[in-house]
Formats: sequence, structure tokens, C-alpha cells
Amino acid sequence: MTKHSQSRKRAEEAIARCRKLASYSEDPGSTRRTFLSPPMRDCHREITGWMEALNMSVRVDAAGNLRGFYPGIEANCPRLLLGSHLDTVPHAGAYDGILGVVIAVSLLEALEGRRLAFAIEVIGFSEEEGVRFGVPFIGSRALVGRFDEELLKARDRRGIAVREALAHFGLDPAEIPRARVAADCLGYVEFHIEQGPVLEELGKPLAAVDFIAGQSRLEFIFLGRSNHAGTTPMHLRHDALAAAAEWIVAVERTARAVTGLVASVGKIEARPGAANVIAGEAWLTLDVRHARDETRSNAVKNLVEQAKQIAQRRGLTVEWEARLDQRAVAMDPSLVAEIERAIAATGCAPHRMMSGAGHDAMIMAEKIPSAMIFLRTPGGISHDPAESVSVEDVEKAIACGLHLLNQLAASPAAPSPAIQERIGSA
Amino acid sequence: MTKHSQSRKRAEEAIARCRKLASYSEDPGSTRRTFLSPPMRDCHREITGWMEALNMSVRVDAAGNLRGFYPGIEANCPRLLLGSHLDTVPHAGAYDGILGVVIAVSLLEALEGRRLAFAIEVIGFSEEEGVRFGVPFIGSRALVGRFDEELLKARDRRGIAVREALAHFGLDPAEIPRARVAADCLGYVEFHIEQGPVLEELGKPLAAVDFIAGQSRLEFIFLGRSNHAGTTPMHLRHDALAAAAEWIVAVERTARAVTGLVASVGKIEARPGAANVIAGEAWLTLDVRHARDETRSNAVKNLVEQAKQIAQRRGLTVEWEARLDQRAVAMDPSLVAEIERAIAATGCAPHRMMSGAGHDAMIMAEKIPSAMIFLRTPGGISHDPAESVSVEDVEKAIACGLHLLNQLAASPAAPSPAIQERIGSA
Repeated sequence: MTKHSQSRKRAEEAIARCRKLASYSEDPGSTRRTFLSPPMRDCHREITGWMEALNMSVRVDAAGNLRGFYPGIEANCPRLLLGSHLDTVPHAGAYDGILGVVIAVSLLEALEGRRLAFAIEVIGFSEEEGVRFGVPFIGSRALVGRFDEELLKARDRRGIAVREALAHFGLDPAEIPRARVAADCLGYVEFHIEQGPVLEELGKPLAAVDFIAGQSRLEFIFLGRSNHAGTTPMHLRHDALAAAAEWIVAVERTARAVTGLVASVGKIEARPGAANVIAGEAWLTLDVRHARDETRSNAVKNLVEQAKQIAQRRGLTVEWEARLDQRAVAMDPSLVAEIERAIAATGCAPHRMMSGAGHDAMIMAEKIPSAMIFLRTPGGISHDPAESVSVEDVEKAIACGLHLLNQLAASPAAPSPAIQERIGSA
Repeated sequence: MTKHSQSRKRAEEAIARCRKLASYSEDPGSTRRTFLSPPMRDCHREITGWMEALNMSVRVDAAGNLRGFYPGIEANCPRLLLGSHLDTVPHAGAYDGILGVVIAVSLLEALEGRRLAFAIEVIGFSEEEGVRFGVPFIGSRALVGRFDEELLKARDRRGIAVREALAHFGLDPAEIPRARVAADCLGYVEFHIEQGPVLEELGKPLAAVDFIAGQSRLEFIFLGRSNHAGTTPMHLRHDALAAAAEWIVAVERTARAVTGLVASVGKIEARPGAANVIAGEAWLTLDVRHARDETRSNAVKNLVEQAKQIAQRRGLTVEWEARLDQRAVAMDPSLVAEIERAIAATGCAPHRMMSGAGHDAMIMAEKIPSAMIFLRTPGGISHDPAESVSVEDVEKAIACGLHLLNQLAASPAAPSPAIQERIGSA
């Protein structure tokens, strides 16, 4: 078999593995695999089989993360972490999260037994989507030491607490501190589908993620005067929905004018909400994201100011409330640079981009150098059964990963004292 | 007692009567008096008492309308109809409908036994709001011969058919044809609160209604592409809510540019409707009204065209469906002219206006010359416990009504052959 057809076969197998794992679901006919759900055991069993075939030692930590260890050339080598999450949203696709774990396994298989100057730990995070307990990143929070008492008390819709769910899965909450990352970590690298249309638009299969966007979430309510739609002339109205509509147009225009800014109104309600009644109230959400926190907070201020002006000009009032103000997280610059080199080595034009969505890498970056590699997502479609990746792009991602491993193995590899200190304080 | 203080007292009594009638309610603490509900009996009993004090003969017709007859100077005089409706919306005010019946009684009281060249029949319509059976104007439909078999089969929320509700109230559906207006009708005049802010804005207590607006009701859906609010750059979006917002602004701008046109979006839904998801669908209603049907239908065409253009420019599609296309109804020109004379005779500047809301006069106009007199509505507030009228305005309305009766009595009063023919075919 030629090298070319081998790498193609490996990519095809990675896709087949993702599809197989998608069949482990809480729902018949579609994929839903939430934190500590029964199909998560099947998922673990399947991946453990692949890892054990590589002579990796495999364990499930006390937070439910699947962790496989592939030793380096020496017993006390530092370690590189590779991974992503194993949980899914309801009605999910087959690649979001899973693909990052599957590619990590493919990379180790592609080493064909070769040992590197560092060990590799593959992590399948137990929880990232926040579906079951309304709290995301539970798996990676355990690795950075943020799986606290409060989180143990969170309850799902059926009233089951995280603590009970862990015990029911056979895990010991008292052991959670032992799930923390080891002090010998070099860094964390996560392959993930882009979940957006940018790479497809650019015609590029891969990108290095340099920032995970900060996010503001607000709620607005325009307060006007409800009235009869037939008896109130246009010039005597205080229509809250018309004011909200003018502002939604302004939100879009404002975001378009700033490079990299996204601002969205995804939810709206007009009250009382009858076809023949002018809306007295219009309630709506705002989601604003940007790689630079200052740009984001300036945009939010600007949009609040525009809402006030629109309301004032129309004889209405507007009230707003901040629901979330999450800072942007920078990926590790030297890891990002290595990823760009690795992308270039596969023959692709390198590209840096922001991730508009949150990922485990955002949490891991609190403690260790972290970076992500995005794969082009056809149609930008994710969180949907139509989610896909092309075999060619997975093949390039595996090739890129191998280049990255070789690059990192070739350069002096030891966690810096600063990193060790951070991990120690996890 | 001076004539001045007498008319003031009469207005105060009219308001007190409306408030008394508002206490006859299906709900404790607020007014709700739907078609054939138990409190409607109390309402009938109360009004019947006032009418019988005037030696009027009173009956409840087979459609539940309360009808009191005040004879003219001769036995075979023609008759003038005065009235409005006795049913209410839930959480109603005290004046919508009721005030028109109460003013009619006040006018007969003000005649102090004087007989005119025509008889007067006061009608308290049983159903106008359409609350109980989802069908409005049930009472007046009986008078014009449109209370048909299909209407008898309509059911309320508890599954009770109109036919059963009539029987339960002690009425005989077979007698409904006898509820039709008599062939000797001169016309129908209805006093009603404006339910809008126009007269207050103009500083005028009364207006003659010359048209009841035609109405178009449509539903629109903008179809874009749902996507992640964080990962989809602004220029790659097909945001259905942003498109709908742009169109709502266009609806408002278009209506403002045409005298007398009102267009409203009162209900909206963005789907899937999550703060962090770009809306793939935006569904909304449109309500358009104008006195001229051509102006209204042109406006609807224009707004559909703008929706198509906005959708096309944004790479979306838009679909729409007409739900209602109700023609405008002209009030009788000579009655409108007489009402204007009567308003002027009270010392008020006459004003003609369109009614944006539907009224029993719209149904009555199918068979007999009909017109309405609007009373200023403080704050334009109606269908709400805060609904009100001023004593001064009610005093002016009663004065106006007396002028109108005297004017009509002074001019040759006989229903035209054309009217008689229409009534005969009812």
C-alpha cells in the first residue's frame, strides 16, 4: 500500500469511527450523548479498544474523562495533551468533539509504534456542551481544578445532582482532585470542526485558532404603549416592536462595520403579541463576540447607546441587563505558530482565525499552553445530523498533526517553570 | 334645576349606569360579559328597568339582543334605530359598547315624554366582540339576516354550540328570522367611544364616522439559514430575523407616507429562538387598514414587494398568506352630514373620521343607512379597566344626539323604497 493510500485509508477510518460512535445515543434515530449517560460507556469501551491496541494505558478519571497514555522515549518525559469532548447536544452531528479524539488516536496509530521525546495523553472530555446540567466544560474544569463543590450540587432536569450522577456511573467524587493535569504537561492541542462557514468560504481545509472570542450576552426590553392597531394613527404610536426592529437593523449594521465582530439577536417577543394590537413591549436578546475584549465592550456600549437613542426619539424607554461577560482567551502564540508551520507543511496555505464558540481549549488555557486546529465544516453546519467533514480534510488534519508532533519532538521539549507553577496551583 | 345642570346630571348618570353595568361580570374583580353569559341577564334586567320607566315595550329577540320600542307620534311611523353592544372582552372597560346603549336611553329620557315623527328602537346587541365563539357581530348579523345555520353550529371553548347556548338562555333558534330589522327603518345611529387617540390629539370631543376601514390581515415568514451566532461572520449570514426587522421598519415607513393608512406588525417569532443561534426563520403578522380599499390593497402589494426585495437582497426567501381581506364600509352620507350639523349645534367643531375598528354599524349598513358618533377616549385606552370618558364629553354627546333627533324629526322622514327593498331581502 502506498503512503498516499494509507493516509487516505486512515482518514476514511476516522470518519467511520465518528459515525460508529454517533450510534451510541440516548435517543433512537438521532444522536444525544450527554454527560455520564449510559451510551457514554459504550463510547468509552469503543475508544478504549483502539487505545489498548496501541498498548496505551487507559483510565476514566473521577470526572468521567477518558484518558489514554502513550509513553515517550523516556520514563520521565514531559507529556503533550491531545483531545476534545465525547458528549453531544441533542439531535447532534457525528463530528463535533468526537473528531478531535478520533484524530488523536489516528495520529498515534500513524506513529506506528514510534516513541517521541514526549509522552502523549489523549483525553476524551466527559462534558463540554452543558446540555445535562446547564453548565458547560465540566470535563475540562476538572483538569484545571475548577470542579468545585457548587458544581457537584448542580441538578439535571430530573433532579439528579452531579454528585449522584458521578456515583451512579461508578465514579468517586472525592477522587476529582486527582483528575487534574500533571505538572509535566507541555501543552494541549485540540482538533475540532470549525462549526462555521469561514474556511469553506476561503477554500481552506485547516486553520490555527489564535483566540477564542469573548462573549457578551444581554437582554433588552423596549417599553412603548400597547394600543389598537386599527384605531391608532401611525404618528400617535409608541410601537415597541417597531423600535426593536429599528435597533436590530442597527445591531447588524454596527457589527458589519467592525472587522471580526459578530452581534446577533436570536430571540424576540412582542407583547401582548396579537396581530391587531400594537406591541407595548418588545423583549429581545443580544449576543456579541470578538477576539479583543475592548472591541467587544465598546460595541456593547455603542449598541446600548443606539437602543437608548431609538427609544428616546420614539417616545419609548429601553431597559437592559447583562447576562454574561466572558473575556476572550488567547491561544498559546508559540503553539499557534507551530500549528501554522504544520499546516504549511501539508501544502495548505496557513490561516489564523478566531473561534466564535467556546471550547475545552479555552478552559485548558487557564493552566497550560493550548491551541486548536479547525477543520473546514461544509455549509458551516453543526449541531445537526447534517454536520459533516470531507475525507480529504481529515486526511490533511492527520498529516498536519503528524507534522506538528514531529516539529514539537524536534525542538527542546520541557514545560517552562511558569507552566509548572500554574499547574501546581491548579 | 337649570337646563345646564340637568344635562350635566344626565351625563353623570349615564357614566354611573355604565359603571353599574360593568359590575355584571363573569369574573370576580374585572369585567367580562360574553354572549349569553349569566351576567348578561342582569344587564338586560337593569336596562329593561330604565326603559320600562319610559313606558317602552321591551323584548329580548331570539339572538339575545335587548330591544326597547319608543313609539312615535303616529302608530305607523317609521322607526330610527339607536344602539350598540352589551357584551365585553375579558378584563374590559366600562364604556366600550355599553355607552352607546346608555346614551340612547338618556336621549329618550331627555325627550321627557315628547313623541317624534318617528319611533325609536333602542338595541343592545348581544354579541359584537367575538370572544365566546370566535365570531364577531353575532347580534347585528341576526338583524340583517346573516345569522345562518353555520353560525348556529359554532362552538365555544367548552364545546357548547351557539344553538345550545341560545336554548340554555331560554331563546328559540327557530325564531331568529323574526329578529330581522323591520321594513320601516329610517336608519341606525351608534354612539361609541373612539378607542383611539385621534380626538384627544385634536382636542375635539365628538366626531362623525364616515367610513369603517377595510382590513387586510396577512402572515409572513422569512426563510434564511439558522447558524451559530459565534462562528458565522456577519457577511456570511442569512439572518431571517434581521430581514424581518428591516421589513418591519419598511412597513412603518410605508404606512406613515400614506394619509389615513395604518399598518402594524403585532406578533413575531424567531426560530429556533435561542440567544446564541442566528434565526433561520422569522414569522410575523401584518394588519393593514384604510378607508379606501384600493389604497389598502396597493399598500399590501407594496409591502409584499418590499418583503420580496429585502429577502432577495439578503439571499433569503419570503412566503406570505392572506388571512383576511375585508372591504371598507361607507356610512350613510346624509346621516353623516346630519351628525356633523348636530355636532356643530352643540358648539363643537365638527370632524369626520374613519373607524379603524369594526362595529355593529358596519353590519347594519348592509341593510339600512347607518352612521356612528365617536366620543373622545382619554389616552386612546380601551379594552382595559383604565378605559374612560369625561362627563363633559358624554354631556356633549347627549346634546348632539338631541340635536340629531330634532333635525331628523324636522325633515321628511320615510324610509326610501330602495331601503325597503334591501330590508325586504334581508
